[in-house]
Amino acid sequence: MATIDRWLLPDGIEEVLPPEAARIETARRRVLDLFHGWGYELVITPHVEFLESLLTGAGQDLDLKTFKITDPLSGRQMGFRADITPQVARVDSHTLRREGPSRLCYVGSVLHARPRALSTSRSPIQLGAELYGDGGVSADIEVISLLLEMLELAEVANVHMDLGHVGVYRGLARAAGLSGDVEQRLFDALQRKAVDEVHELTAGLPESLAKMLQALASLCGGREVLQAAREVLAQAPDDVRMALESLERIAAALAQRFPRLPLYFDLGELRGYHYHTGVVFAAFVPGVGQSIAQGGRYDDIGADFGRARPATGFSTDLKTLVTLGQAELGEPSLAIWAPFDADPSLWNEVRRLRGEGRRVLQALEGQALDGVACDRQLINEGGAWRVVPLAP
Amino acid sequence: MATIDRWLLPDGIEEVLPPEAARIETARRRVLDLFHGWGYELVITPHVEFLESLLTGAGQDLDLKTFKITDPLSGRQMGFRADITPQVARVDSHTLRREGPSRLCYVGSVLHARPRALSTSRSPIQLGAELYGDGGVSADIEVISLLLEMLELAEVANVHMDLGHVGVYRGLARAAGLSGDVEQRLFDALQRKAVDEVHELTAGLPESLAKMLQALASLCGGREVLQAAREVLAQAPDDVRMALESLERIAAALAQRFPRLPLYFDLGELRGYHYHTGVVFAAFVPGVGQSIAQGGRYDDIGADFGRARPATGFSTDLKTLVTLGQAELGEPSLAIWAPFDADPSLWNEVRRLRGEGRRVLQALEGQALDGVACDRQLINEGGAWRVVPLAP
Repeated sequence: MATIDRWLLPDGIEEVLPPEAARIETARRRVLDLFHGWGYELVITPHVEFLESLLTGAGQDLDLKTFKITDPLSGRQMGFRADITPQVARVDSHTLRREGPSRLCYVGSVLHARPRALSTSRSPIQLGAELYGDGGVSADIEVISLLLEMLELAEVANVHMDLGHVGVYRGLARAAGLSGDVEQRLFDALQRKAVDEVHELTAGLPESLAKMLQALASLCGGREVLQAAREVLAQAPDDVRMALESLERIAAALAQRFPRLPLYFDLGELRGYHYHTGVVFAAFVPGVGQSIAQGGRYDDIGADFGRARPATGFSTDLKTLVTLGQAELGEPSLAIWAPFDADPSLWNEVRRLRGEGRRVLQALEGQALDGVACDRQLINEGGAWRVVPLAP
Repeated sequence: MATIDRWLLPDGIEEVLPPEAARIETARRRVLDLFHGWGYELVITPHVEFLESLLTGAGQDLDLKTFKITDPLSGRQMGFRADITPQVARVDSHTLRREGPSRLCYVGSVLHARPRALSTSRSPIQLGAELYGDGGVSADIEVISLLLEMLELAEVANVHMDLGHVGVYRGLARAAGLSGDVEQRLFDALQRKAVDEVHELTAGLPESLAKMLQALASLCGGREVLQAAREVLAQAPDDVRMALESLERIAAALAQRFPRLPLYFDLGELRGYHYHTGVVFAAFVPGVGQSIAQGGRYDDIGADFGRARPATGFSTDLKTLVTLGQAELGEPSLAIWAPFDADPSLWNEVRRLRGEGRRVLQALEGQALDGVACDRQLINEGGAWRVVPLAP
């Protein structure tokens, strides 16, 4: 990232200078073109909305992240978007109201009142794709594949993918009759892989369910974990076994499409548990603590907007993508230097060159040649304008 | 513009749906490419900043338009940007700190607590270009020409251009020793072309100055106004006559470059008087009450950031540009329909097609052919994948 001015800008709020801004613009176009190639349609959602629209189904985490303002026109509370996903869900369920699958994508700034982690940005450029209206595994496979193609396009190296499924824990907890506080505490213990606590919290449950819940803390690793889970969870309720089967199908498809991609499964770690309803996934690279792109299935998010729709999708931060990616994004081209001259034939020639995609810097009155940004110049030879190399 | 949902979105806050969002994206790219061709470099400024940075030199009007929030990290007041121009001025004067001319451009959402006029958007996508570091007329001519090329690119029809110069009134008011309340009241009267009031307010002044100030109310019309002004203001102070001369040079250059463009001069109307320091200009089209693109010279805006720099530039709203423009922005292309099939050769073929820039919609499991968005399909003939037209 370009210089961050710590004196004038709030912590975690960045500006992007040339030529970095041009690199971000190039990456933005390439990713949107990729999404377009997969049939995803761009939507532009507003930066502020009424708070109830913005936070619907999103949980307390987003609430804490959201800056609130009062709308002087309506007197109602508005929020500045901290996440674009709920907005796009609203567009799908309430505004577009299409039958069948709907593929949507977006890019835009979001604002976090509090940073996700110390030293992370509070103003990422969120970029994402969402597939609505299909609850099947093939939709999950499509969005995960698209996420991976996006990382490949940006030439992010050494990506590995974490996968989980909130249906495994949720199904077992439901079967065990857990809810409220106990479910939450067990969930927290699993996140921390605090095995003793997990044993304690499941002590009073029927032995078979207790064993299965305890096993979740250690069901993490490569694709062999799914085989192990199949055995350990053989007696689990149907929905748990269906969740496992979904993961197996996703693993098989990804192994076929991206044979060199390391896959890592964790049946106990449940990012976005309160938000997601099915498979959850996140891409990581070595040396970066946070996931660099993440998503999952979050069915029924549109219910509050009048229509429950299956949904799966992912998001990333465009600035992170450019910082981590190795892709050649091109430096802005050096320009042709045009002299200061009121001759109409010069204006016509400069216009012609620009129309052909050439970059032309026109001298201002009295300005000396700007050698830094130019490698050619326009000169008049016998009444005709010609582009010649700049003498070094 | 696409449907505005009045029930769910605050007044004047819009979302943009497909295919309109794709048209805006196309226009965005074309205009940024135009700016690039003229040597303008993209900067990305943050959506929020500390209030003092955001409002520096911008006056009360911007203050009233700006949503305020308290930064939980620093406890200081921040504002959501209502205008990007002061941010870019800060970048030029404080962050980049270049010698010589600096050409910068930007695009991004701004947010207005109150709409500019009834029924106008509170969330325009502001797009603009700024030229810093040169106080000469050739810089003004460059940015006005770029504005006009932008409107031509967007194919906005029947544009006419209004030009004025705040130096005319300012110079006369200074010579007359006007300041504070009287200067403001006379200014207001001139804006309203309230001739009687102007006479009243100038009654006690030396006759020559009174006559000149009174004349401003009627110095409006075509290029001939500049000739008339030259006579009426022959005895005006030097800075007034230099302001007039600037307008004459700009008029001559624009008449040469854009011979069919109607130019309209108004020496009494002073949009942005508290903000601008020199020439002011605005483009209009019939039937739209507000200007569709506007700008002017605002020297010394960077002074509060440590370095006073000459500055001239303009801005527009990208959504308005797309709505008013006739440019063929292209509908998103119809896609090739690919069946649901786990065969790795299908994945490879779909990937190849997308890599060539083709749009491919892949069927989800159990999904029927989506004829609406596709005009071709991928079929397997004897083990090879082929694109064939979709039977109508």
